[in-house]
Amino acid sequence: MARRLLRGGNDLAVYDVVPERVAELVSAGAHASESIAEACAGRDVALTSLPDDGALREAGLAPGGIRTSLPAGAVHVAMGTHGVASIRALEVAHAEAGQALVAAPVFGRPDMASTGQLRIVAGGPSEAVSRCSPLFELIGQRTYAAGTKPEAAAIVKLANNLLLGCAVEALAEAYSLLRKLDVAPQVLYDVATEGFLAAPVYRVYGQTMLDEAYDDIGFTASLGLKDVNLILAAGEAALVPMPSVNAYHDRLLGAVAHGDGERDLAVVAREQERACGLRAGPTAA
Amino acid sequence: MARRLLRGGNDLAVYDVVPERVAELVSAGAHASESIAEACAGRDVALTSLPDDGALREAGLAPGGIRTSLPAGAVHVAMGTHGVASIRALEVAHAEAGQALVAAPVFGRPDMASTGQLRIVAGGPSEAVSRCSPLFELIGQRTYAAGTKPEAAAIVKLANNLLLGCAVEALAEAYSLLRKLDVAPQVLYDVATEGFLAAPVYRVYGQTMLDEAYDDIGFTASLGLKDVNLILAAGEAALVPMPSVNAYHDRLLGAVAHGDGERDLAVVAREQERACGLRAGPTAA
Amino acid sequence: MARRLLRGGNDLAVYDVVPERVAELVSAGAHASESIAEACAGRDVALTSLPDDGALREAGLAPGGIRTSLPAGAVHVAMGTHGVASIRALEVAHAEAGQALVAAPVFGRPDMASTGQLRIVAGGPSEAVSRCSPLFELIGQRTYAAGTKPEAAAIVKLANNLLLGCAVEALAEAYSLLRKLDVAPQVLYDVATEGFLAAPVYRVYGQTMLDEAYDDIGFTASLGLKDVNLILAAGEAALVPMPSVNAYHDRLLGAVAHGDGERDLAVVAREQERACGLRAGPTAA
Amino acid sequence: MARRLLRGGNDLAVYDVVPERVAELVSAGAHASESIAEACAGRDVALTSLPDDGALREAGLAPGGIRTSLPAGAVHVAMGTHGVASIRALEVAHAEAGQALVAAPVFGRPDMASTGQLRIVAGGPSEAVSRCSPLFELIGQRTYAAGTKPEAAAIVKLANNLLLGCAVEALAEAYSLLRKLDVAPQVLYDVATEGFLAAPVYRVYGQTMLDEAYDDIGFTASLGLKDVNLILAAGEAALVPMPSVNAYHDRLLGAVAHGDGERDLAVVAREQERACGLRAGPTAA
Repeated sequence: MARRLLRGGNDLAVYDVVPERVAELVSAGAHASESIAEACAGRDVALTSLPDDGALREAGLAPGGIRTSLPAGAVHVAMGTHGVASIRALEVAHAEAGQALVAAPVFGRPDMASTGQLRIVAGGPSEAVSRCSPLFELIGQRTYAAGTKPEAAAIVKLANNLLLGCAVEALAEAYSLLRKLDVAPQVLYDVATEGFLAAPVYRVYGQTMLDEAYDDIGFTASLGLKDVNLILAAGEAALVPMPSVNAYHDRLLGAVAHGDGERDLAVVAREQERACGLRAGPTAA
Repeated sequence: MARRLLRGGNDLAVYDVVPERVAELVSAGAHASESIAEACAGRDVALTSLPDDGALREAGLAPGGIRTSLPAGAVHVAMGTHGVASIRALEVAHAEAGQALVAAPVFGRPDMASTGQLRIVAGGPSEAVSRCSPLFELIGQRTYAAGTKPEAAAIVKLANNLLLGCAVEALAEAYSLLRKLDVAPQVLYDVATEGFLAAPVYRVYGQTMLDEAYDDIGFTASLGLKDVNLILAAGEAALVPMPSVNAYHDRLLGAVAHGDGERDLAVVAREQERACGLRAGPTAA
Repeated sequence: MARRLLRGGNDLAVYDVVPERVAELVSAGAHASESIAEACAGRDVALTSLPDDGALREAGLAPGGIRTSLPAGAVHVAMGTHGVASIRALEVAHAEAGQALVAAPVFGRPDMASTGQLRIVAGGPSEAVSRCSPLFELIGQRTYAAGTKPEAAAIVKLANNLLLGCAVEALAEAYSLLRKLDVAPQVLYDVATEGFLAAPVYRVYGQTMLDEAYDDIGFTASLGLKDVNLILAAGEAALVPMPSVNAYHDRLLGAVAHGDGERDLAVVAREQERACGLRAGPTAA
Repeated sequence: MARRLLRGGNDLAVYDVVPERVAELVSAGAHASESIAEACAGRDVALTSLPDDGALREAGLAPGGIRTSLPAGAVHVAMGTHGVASIRALEVAHAEAGQALVAAPVFGRPDMASTGQLRIVAGGPSEAVSRCSPLFELIGQRTYAAGTKPEAAAIVKLANNLLLGCAVEALAEAYSLLRKLDVAPQVLYDVATEGFLAAPVYRVYGQTMLDEAYDDIGFTASLGLKDVNLILAAGEAALVPMPSVNAYHDRLLGAVAHGDGERDLAVVAREQERACGLRAGPTAA
């Protein structure tokens, strides 16, 4: 994403806890910053792409963080997948500092970022979102407007991941049913990847499960569990029971318990195999 | 399907409990039969497309039914969605009569049948499946081979419907989450119908739920419940717990309990709305 | 139960597929019968205590069975745990023969039968239930009236087993939580067997789980699964989703899948241990 | 509890955010304190009985709170129902101040406190627990030792509440099954309150559900939801899926969503009735 912003002619100051990543981007034209404060000083827009809510709250709210370092009138664009409560807290804090928060989570795998194929859902005050539009156009192929509240964008991202996760869990259940009944899962794969279910989610995860290639990692089970907990927390806040999210959550929790947390989240298929006696407990690497 | 067989030049005798349907096909070139026995007498192949296992067992196994009426050496092709136990029972009964059973469930909506766009998964003895191939080529755009056991084709169909049903249930949960949090479901629809989830299942059911058009019926909740019970029965036989199938089942059961059984199965979205207080109990028509 | 009826001075003809059991009861004063028909001929009351619905339908409805062998005006008392559909079918069949069906399932362990400590829930036509009261007084310590429909007694038995099963499942979940957090389950046992939860169910199953004494069998997991399927079938008929019954069902199904079907149903605790990584898959005997 | 400590001759300083409660205890012989700091100054032991983890962390860890106000060598006894993470955080904080934390949650209803009928599970350093034993003997009828880690006592309390909650949920499911099948729940009540299930939990909640007396509040659904979230959080930390806890959680969440949060938690029976069409959505008071 940073490279695409640079290619678009933007003046970019970068900060990362991993110096190598900063160095890479400096060689592509960015300015290195020694701290969040330095990266934010005098800037119009700060973009973050952080792995979890803890990191976002720390980077955003701690002394020396984005809120205290950005000028009034600036915009913080949070592009990670975050929970409703964190986005709300950050929105309030930035508003108190005369700043705006835009939540703009991205859709697509990492390899789609470099070619600008990501999609973005943006939520936040109209003026702030408009100001960021040229940046979104560089980063992604399409931006969807989620309205004037940042949390709306966060919720759409979580709801999308809910659909993905439940599709993966359903695949896991379907495959285990086939395997226990001595039917080749390949036939289901062939059928389901055409017609009504013809979506990458069934192709990608269906293939991973066919190959049992759980060490080719798109997104780990541990990160999947973090995500599903954000979804369940949103459901708790909204008083919405979501029984199939529970089912997916419990399989992810079991996968982590069995030592598969750092494998691809398609490994819930193994967990389902354990539940029906197709597989003994802990897996050898 | 019958019209496509006729257009292919086949000699077709038809029987249906609804005389109008027979008349329609006679006008298209078929011979009318007064009974299953008459329709089967001296035929090489009998095709059934029946709504449930009771009808299949009755048509197949009762005195005067297919098994007693077809000659030895003939093939019964069961094209409905059926349970494992029924297919096994029928397979054994036909084998005892020197006949073969081919299970060949179809994939696709009714309107796809007339244009030959259905897809077929066929399972049964190789020779019998081969003999039916020309028929399958007339009826569908593609036939997938599920192996030499008829039940394998039945199971693939059930597993496919498992994926569909769980996707619908996940949509229902996602939409209720959005609605309770005051986020327009349209945004999720727009995002989810591109990218990783870009499949007709999310478009068709997502749109039905957006429009609350539950009286535009593709497949009723009652039939969905029948299907999911076949899936759970297969899981019981195979000793496979399937927790997200349970979640889908329970929402369908609730939908029927609330009087929505004859609406489209997307009506599980209403059931999910009831569960989180978005909607009062029984629905007005 | 038969011995207690004999001790009460009843004239008892007995039939069992296992000749040893007949011989035992003959030595206690019963008449041996060679068949159901012989045992029923000319009798006022026929009592059955059968392990499942298949056996009940066979004994009750097959040619030479109870319905065709009992005189008009007689009563069939079904004392097993049976499903609603079977009881309804039997009730209708007996009524057509001028006979009455009383469902009278018993509560208590086998060792309580010999000392008359069982409890009985009786449902059926008032006159028929009254006629059986002296027998119930010999067999059990107390009879509860479930009304004039036999199915009501069957449903109360199933609902009671629902409570038992869910308590066992909850114990399994609680114990696994304690074990994973390195807390001795004995403390929970001590607390929970006094106070609000002071019932035999928590003592008996809690102790079995503490001792992992799953081969001391009160009721096997396989029989528990049969029972819970009757409960779920009743829920299906009544359109009642029962999510915690699903949870219990799935653990029982997993226990059978892992080869623990012939152990005591408290073995769901092992299944719960498998789900959280406390135990590898298949168990050694 | 405070009155019993006073009656035992203890020198008691009391603080509460509600002045009336302080006044009541002063009239019974306690010293009034204006602040936590004043109540703790120079004391050997501080007892808290707080409604949730937020209040405990605030009272324990905030500046002017228990940790900064108690002398080194003193003991903080936390008698509320608390989560594992909070107890761990508090334990570490007190240890840094040379103080000990004892977790000592109580079992029993409020009316049992005045007569010393509560039961206590105590966890913490042996010396600290011993020092508190005379206090526990005044407050409760029995103290169970959970070992030297405070969290063990917290976990036993949560596990006990898990058993209670799942029993209530199972009752709700059983009652709705009976009601839909036109069987009087009273018969189940009569049967289940004797024999294997003869525990107060089935009597008390069974009676509340029979009478639909959800405004006679023992413990509200909202507080039940708070509790079950602590249980699920413990499961998350321990990587233990607990499917029947999920079922209970979702019914409680639905009850709160339907406006029944401030009714007794037995109101999950209403939620179950909604799920099966026995009851329309929002309830009139």
